[in-house]
Amino acid sequence: MPELVFIGLGLYDEKDISQKGLEIAKECDILFAEFYTSKLSEGSLNKLQEIIGKEVTVLNREEFEAGKVILEKAKESKVGILIVGDPMTATTHVSLRLDAEREGIITRIVHGASIFTATSGLLGLQSYKFGRVTTLGFPRENFLPRSPYQVIEDNLAHNLHTLILLDIDAENNRYMSAREALNLLLELEELEGGEVISEDMLLAVVGNAGSDDPAVSAGYLKDLLEEEFPEGLYSLVIPSELHYMEAEALVELAGASRDIIKE
Amino acid sequence: MPELVFIGLGLYDEKDISQKGLEIAKECDILFAEFYTSKLSEGSLNKLQEIIGKEVTVLNREEFEAGKVILEKAKESKVGILIVGDPMTATTHVSLRLDAEREGIITRIVHGASIFTATSGLLGLQSYKFGRVTTLGFPRENFLPRSPYQVIEDNLAHNLHTLILLDIDAENNRYMSAREALNLLLELEELEGGEVISEDMLLAVVGNAGSDDPAVSAGYLKDLLEEEFPEGLYSLVIPSELHYMEAEALVELAGASRDIIKE
Repeated sequence: MPELVFIGLGLYDEKDISQKGLEIAKECDILFAEFYTSKLSEGSLNKLQEIIGKEVTVLNREEFEAGKVILEKAKESKVGILIVGDPMTATTHVSLRLDAEREGIITRIVHGASIFTATSGLLGLQSYKFGRVTTLGFPRENFLPRSPYQVIEDNLAHNLHTLILLDIDAENNRYMSAREALNLLLELEELEGGEVISEDMLLAVVGNAGSDDPAVSAGYLKDLLEEEFPEGLYSLVIPSELHYMEAEALVELAGASRDIIKE
Repeated sequence: MPELVFIGLGLYDEKDISQKGLEIAKECDILFAEFYTSKLSEGSLNKLQEIIGKEVTVLNREEFEAGKVILEKAKESKVGILIVGDPMTATTHVSLRLDAEREGIITRIVHGASIFTATSGLLGLQSYKFGRVTTLGFPRENFLPRSPYQVIEDNLAHNLHTLILLDIDAENNRYMSAREALNLLLELEELEGGEVISEDMLLAVVGNAGSDDPAVSAGYLKDLLEEEFPEGLYSLVIPSELHYMEAEALVELAGASRDIIKE
């Protein structure tokens, strides 16, 4: 039956898809994937194609956003779109789903694990203490988007943690590193001239969530700048005031100095 | 090797566990589960035991919070704990993990899909427009916790959506229904005497996320009160100002009246 299914791949590699997602992917006549909002680790797509037993056509941003290829196929076949994380966190997925529904195509979502909850989970921070999420973008043509600064400031003012997702430059196959992100935060502070970000601020870094060996580190910004992190996909957290157990978690699970508990 | 693995089961049934989670569960010597922070649908645990090929011991709240049984076993065997959603969203999971680490037990998390992202995804609302999450608790001994009201008020003041999780009464095997929740919100409004919740307020309801047929509905509170929703696990969203595409999504995907776009 013609249908368009958004299948979440989860966080890291070919094994993070759910049983349900795998079953439905196998039933699909045609499989697409988009890897410009997020990516699986190196080599995972090939393994995933083997497990599913079908070829996956990876669409670039323009092809995906136009959506034409997908919608044409979904009018006559069962089409699956593989998306890293939990589908529909990007506007472009919602837009495609709406276009499909308007053309009378049945749509469905198969959920996957998302960086939105994985980051706080790995750090042991409490999910209900997070405020609004923000994405730190690569500076483009010397313009550095300032909205993350406002989000962080606002969250801190309300005693809420901030999850900061880091940009992906899909065209150049480049992820923003933790160090780049930390430096951008300092740059934003200088541009804004506020008192939000400082070198003595406690921060947490999470990389390669979902892998066997995620990078999880918490400490003062100046110390994190000196750390060497393995390559991969990173996110940051700027914690507000910590509950006792959260502080303990950052010490025990993320290597923060015990100082943070006495503060 | 002795180890304690927190394995996310995802949202709804035995098929929402990831390939990775299933593989690791099979490798475990002992499997526990807790179903008091959230639950799988009826019958799913039996099917999951069949798929894994191992018996799962379900712990109640006291056993889980004490953690003793789990830690003793994890000192000498590979122990898995099955948890609905993405593990570590509940404080009690973090607490157990810290206890394990302090006793020198290696711990690991296998992520799963979570209601935190599934709800916004199913509704087509943008995840970065959500503020703090809150849980609406059952009134206990005539006391109705008021914090959800403050969270909603605060989020609306900052033009952010609020995800409201609904309480589970695990002891009596009872979920809070959407209707109960809507009535509690009106009750909170009366107690607080503010101007946050009203019968003419736009709201969204999501139930049985992750199933083949999730309940997804958006409309004015007074109209949602008249709707009959199937049994299951529900959450609500109180949207703030909607982007055009979000409003379209609530109309197309959640049956809201087209009025909401003109407002």
